[in-house]
This record gives sequence, C-alpha cells and structure tokens, in this order.
Amino acid sequence: MPTLVLIRHGQSSWNLENRFTGWWDVDLTEQGVKEAWAAGELMRDKGLDFDMTYTSFQSRAIKTLNLALEAMGRLWLPTEKSWKLNERHYGGLTGLNKAETAAKHGDEQVHLWRRSFDIPPPLPEEGSAWDLAKDERYKGIPIPQTESLKDTIARVLPYWEERIAPDLCAGKRVLIAAHGNSLRALVKHLSGISDEEITGLEIPTGQPIVYELADDLAPTDRYYLNER
Amino acid sequence: MPTLVLIRHGQSSWNLENRFTGWWDVDLTEQGVKEAWAAGELMRDKGLDFDMTYTSFQSRAIKTLNLALEAMGRLWLPTEKSWKLNERHYGGLTGLNKAETAAKHGDEQVHLWRRSFDIPPPLPEEGSAWDLAKDERYKGIPIPQTESLKDTIARVLPYWEERIAPDLCAGKRVLIAAHGNSLRALVKHLSGISDEEITGLEIPTGQPIVYELADDLAPTDRYYLNER
Repeated sequence: MPTLVLIRHGQSSWNLENRFTGWWDVDLTEQGVKEAWAAGELMRDKGLDFDMTYTSFQSRAIKTLNLALEAMGRLWLPTEKSWKLNERHYGGLTGLNKAETAAKHGDEQVHLWRRSFDIPPPLPEEGSAWDLAKDERYKGIPIPQTESLKDTIARVLPYWEERIAPDLCAGKRVLIAAHGNSLRALVKHLSGISDEEITGLEIPTGQPIVYELADDLAPTDRYYLNER
Repeated sequence: MPTLVLIRHGQSSWNLENRFTGWWDVDLTEQGVKEAWAAGELMRDKGLDFDMTYTSFQSRAIKTLNLALEAMGRLWLPTEKSWKLNERHYGGLTGLNKAETAAKHGDEQVHLWRRSFDIPPPLPEEGSAWDLAKDERYKGIPIPQTESLKDTIARVLPYWEERIAPDLCAGKRVLIAAHGNSLRALVKHLSGISDEEITGLEIPTGQPIVYELADDLAPTDRYYLNER
C-alpha cells in the first residue's frame, strides 16, 4: 500500500515576525528546529519509514527534512529538491509586515490576497529589497513574479504527476517536506477539497500528515500522525 | 574550467575514541560540526560555488555536506548520495579500539591492515555487534564484508567515471563530501599517486581540497583552500 507523508516546515523567523514570506529564504527559528526534530522522532517511534524524499528549494523546508531524517536515522535517503514545491510566491507583499500592510491597504484587501483562491498579490516593485531575480538558485528557471493559490497549484500538480506519483505507484514510501500552500495544493488534489474550502485549510507546522493510498493513489485514510 | 572540491567529513566520535570506524555510522563531534561549518564559510568567502554535490551513505559525510552548504547559503543544490563513496570497509576491525587491537594482534599486523595497499582486514565475526547486514540502507546492495584500499578504489572509480566525471565534463562545478579512503581513491586517480605513496597520504578533516581541471579532467592545479 503506497504511503505518503506530508510535513510543513517548522516555525520560521518570519512566521514569528508576522511578515509575508513566500519565496524569501528565511531560516527556521529555534522552535522550528525542535518541531522538525520532534517530527522525525515521532515518525521513527510510530514505525514509519521511507524510500524517497522530496522538498523545495527553500532552506526552511530543506532543513526541516534534514533534521527529521537525522532524528529517524535516515539521512542517507535520496532527496529531490524542486522549486515547484516552493511556498506560494507573495509577489509585492514579500517582506512586508502583515499588520502594516493591512493598515495601508485595508483588512479586506489583505484578506483577499491571503485567502482568495485566484487573486494574486500585486507584482513586486522595481528595485525592491526582496527581489529574487539575482538569486542563483532560480537562474535559468521561468519563475513566477506573484502567485494566487490557483497559480501555485498549477505548478505543484504537474510536478506531483511527473515525479512523485510514479514513485508511489512503484510502491515507494514518500516523504515531502514543503510549505503551507504547496501542501494545500497536494491535499486539495488528493482529498478533493473545493476551491472555496482549501483557502481556509490550515496546515500546522512540523506535524506529519499521513496519507494511506490505494494502488490508484486514491486516499483510503488521512490523519495527523500525532493523533494516532 | 571544471572545478572539483573534495572535503573529508569533520571529526567523528570514533576519531576521538580511536576506534576503527569504516562503515559504522557514527556522528560528528561538536568539533566536527564546527569544522564543517567553517569549511562552508571558507568556500563562500573564497567565492567558490557549485552546481552539483555528492556524498556517501554515511551520516558524518552527509552532515558535513549539509552544514557546509548551509553556511554557503546553498542548501538547495542537488545532492546524490551513494554507498560507493563510503569509507573503506574495515571488516572485522569495525568498532574495535586501535590500541587494544594492536595489543592483541601486534603493532606490525595492525599497521599492515591500516597502511598496506591490498591487504584487507579479517572478515567480521559471526554475530558481531557491528554487523551491517540488518542496516536498511544497504538492503539489496552487494556490499563488501571487508576492504583493502585497493578494493575501495575499485568501487569508487567506476562511480567517478559513471556519475561524477560526466558532470565535470559538462562544465558543472562539483563538491564531494566523503571519507579519508574514498577521497584517497580520487586523489590517487587524479594526481597519479603510486600504490605505495597513497597509503601514507593523510587527508585532513574539514579542509576543502580544490582541483582545477582541464577539459579532459587532467588536473592543472591542486591546493588546500585555506592555504590560498
């Protein structure tokens, strides 16, 4: 039976500072490190094991994966990293404080950017301090400038189909360490959640979500590992 | 110009305890962690960068790579892990204290096992505490039971030819984090060192060794990065 575990990265420094993060490469906080380690210990104690692991191009997800694998004694497992598992790109909101942004644009507008399905934030301003164009990791990659959740789903799902689903179909046990919105994309797809509902689905940091799947990858069970 | 950097893992707990380690999966010491981080900072400060990274199946090398990449802001680089870059397999000596082993077998015999080119240590004893047969990571892999340096070279070089050399020929900048003897195999091959000399060549922990290579991968320069 194919098994898939999803884990959102532990707390990051900008989670704590209440800033829009998106593709900005912030680090885990000390608590985030602890969450990642505890997730690995929980998976080990519950007897979970993996054949393949996936993560994004962003340090907070990669470190979460590495810490969890170390806690499991599984650092040697193969890992594929892809920008297609990155967080939703927050465009011109990247780096801004959420409260300040609400004061400037109004609560309603910010709520729309954060919680609508298909409205992307504004494009980044010219010369913004949070410009990603010079980031080596995205060299030669047709990266987005801003994304709605719908846009995020539109690049996560082809990656799922091309890379991850074939591993599961081949009987591999797969662990994915990623972000709130790239994981929403997968949960929406697997669990058939509507456009309206998915924007309100909160994925907690550092909590392994287990999917047990039939051979055609239809879920037979989904649960938080800490609740079993 | 293809660039290759080799780095031996930082100090491990059994380096410190003076035990034969080989394929046993010991952790880095606190000093080993510092060495790995400092190596990453040194590479970053010297302007080195990479497109591809390789390491072994052993935690001390993988952690050295991960820490160095984190210090460089390059955690997102792809990594291929292979048992073919593992340390030399110390067979029946694995886990034993070097001084005790010398007291039991004599200095000369231990020196022969440690420093001869083609004499492997004895096979592991039945039911040894250091048996690797149950280690999940080697499931389905035709792993050795003991190795001379010559045996180690005989599995490192095909991996070099099949996986690493093509990357360098394609212009990729490559970082390899591995072990004293798997790196000896590469240095012997690249620098044309004799069977007699290679057994005495010490590769220091946590010191990046830079190879500048011609297009046919013949070295044009080799140096310790901290000496430039």
